[in-house]
Amino acid sequence: MINITSSRNDTYKIIHKIASSASQRRKNNLYVVEGEKIVREAIMSSQGVVKIVVNNVGLELINELNISKDIEIVLLDDELFETVSDTVNSQGIIALMKIKDYSITQINFNRVLIIDRVQDPGNVGTLIRSADAFAFDLIISLKGSCDIYNPKVVRATMGSIFHLPIVKDLTNKETLNILNNKKTTIYSTNLSHKAISIGEVNVKHPFAIVIGNESKGVSSFWIEAADSNVIIPISGNAESLNAAVAGSIIMYQFSCM
Amino acid sequence: MINITSSRNDTYKIIHKIASSASQRRKNNLYVVEGEKIVREAIMSSQGVVKIVVNNVGLELINELNISKDIEIVLLDDELFETVSDTVNSQGIIALMKIKDYSITQINFNRVLIIDRVQDPGNVGTLIRSADAFAFDLIISLKGSCDIYNPKVVRATMGSIFHLPIVKDLTNKETLNILNNKKTTIYSTNLSHKAISIGEVNVKHPFAIVIGNESKGVSSFWIEAADSNVIIPISGNAESLNAAVAGSIIMYQFSCM
Repeated sequence: MINITSSRNDTYKIIHKIASSASQRRKNNLYVVEGEKIVREAIMSSQGVVKIVVNNVGLELINELNISKDIEIVLLDDELFETVSDTVNSQGIIALMKIKDYSITQINFNRVLIIDRVQDPGNVGTLIRSADAFAFDLIISLKGSCDIYNPKVVRATMGSIFHLPIVKDLTNKETLNILNNKKTTIYSTNLSHKAISIGEVNVKHPFAIVIGNESKGVSSFWIEAADSNVIIPISGNAESLNAAVAGSIIMYQFSCM
Repeated sequence: MINITSSRNDTYKIIHKIASSASQRRKNNLYVVEGEKIVREAIMSSQGVVKIVVNNVGLELINELNISKDIEIVLLDDELFETVSDTVNSQGIIALMKIKDYSITQINFNRVLIIDRVQDPGNVGTLIRSADAFAFDLIISLKGSCDIYNPKVVRATMGSIFHLPIVKDLTNKETLNILNNKKTTIYSTNLSHKAISIGEVNVKHPFAIVIGNESKGVSSFWIEAADSNVIIPISGNAESLNAAVAGSIIMYQFSCM
């Protein structure tokens, strides 16, 4: 175990960068998960834990966690820990993790979620959690979406980030090629276009559902590329649904079919 | 118009209290909504706007807004405005609003959402937005839930807070009496109990759906009081869904029946 008390320490600097910057996460291929439950799951399921970072509170959890000897344990002073923690009531434990590298051509899929420039980290994390719940087997996060390794995204996934392959930063064209190669039926959500109510779709497998940006919706590329444009029937006064809610309702409905 | 430059000004102090404290909102029967779109809707639909609060950016919107003469306009210095604003990229306009007082015995309802100690303001606001989308006509927020007039809740409702009656701080017993008086069928979400899959419920009107706390679920009071305990079928690896997502899926499903 190393005990760090200065913000000039190089290990501290790395952890701080990874916790706060998407470009640093990309460059170093690392991210952080925070909280006892998810750190425990990361260790148990061999998810590529590189370091365990604790404060004095989290230190008490270390003994029960059965951490392999090649994982370094870093004790940060409380003030330093706060600067890398994303939660108000922290349990004082963070894992520094390797980002998994998926070779998308080798993934077999039946149900795919495409995240098209969704911006809010809570929405992205919630979509990942729902995709996991409804047995989706691949998520593609297109260029321009919120970084899926943002700590707020990871927290909102409630562990689902470990459960299915998530491929990020693909372009529209790369993604369309992959879907076409496996003869995937593409369903795009679309409020303005002539669209089919989701309960009336004859869902063909394998399929992909495209969920769009909170204010702009799905891009014209996917509205054009889709086999069907679908809509959730709204009978009340709200103009639209929250993006994570809309995506989750469609995943629920299609998983029942 | 009054121009406030000091944090010792009494009007500023009131606005600041209302924006930041649930107990002050309750005591003064006031809340705030922020952003051009929702302020515009508040004015147009006569929702009880008391004051319009702007900074120099928001000031430019005033002329197009057609504000009645009995609504006072308050110009705050940018620094003061920031302390009452809840958004990072503020549009510089806030409305101070009267909380509507509903007499619950006079409300006719067919579809009711019961919020049972949901804590996250984003979840509560999203539930209100979805209830509005699926034509619910009453929301009851039970004691112990996040304040529905919290600015983060109001923002997440995207205007739906104006569209249907929301009665707050009721006790379990008061609520059950109201529901029983109108022979309402009560559906409680329940992960642990013997529960019916939501697609298989024979929904009887009027009905109420109870959505529970993010980690503890629905309280035992409602699990006992419910006519049916229902569950969303999950086929994947996630243990559960986000509370707002779960509530929205059930509202969607029941509104199709």
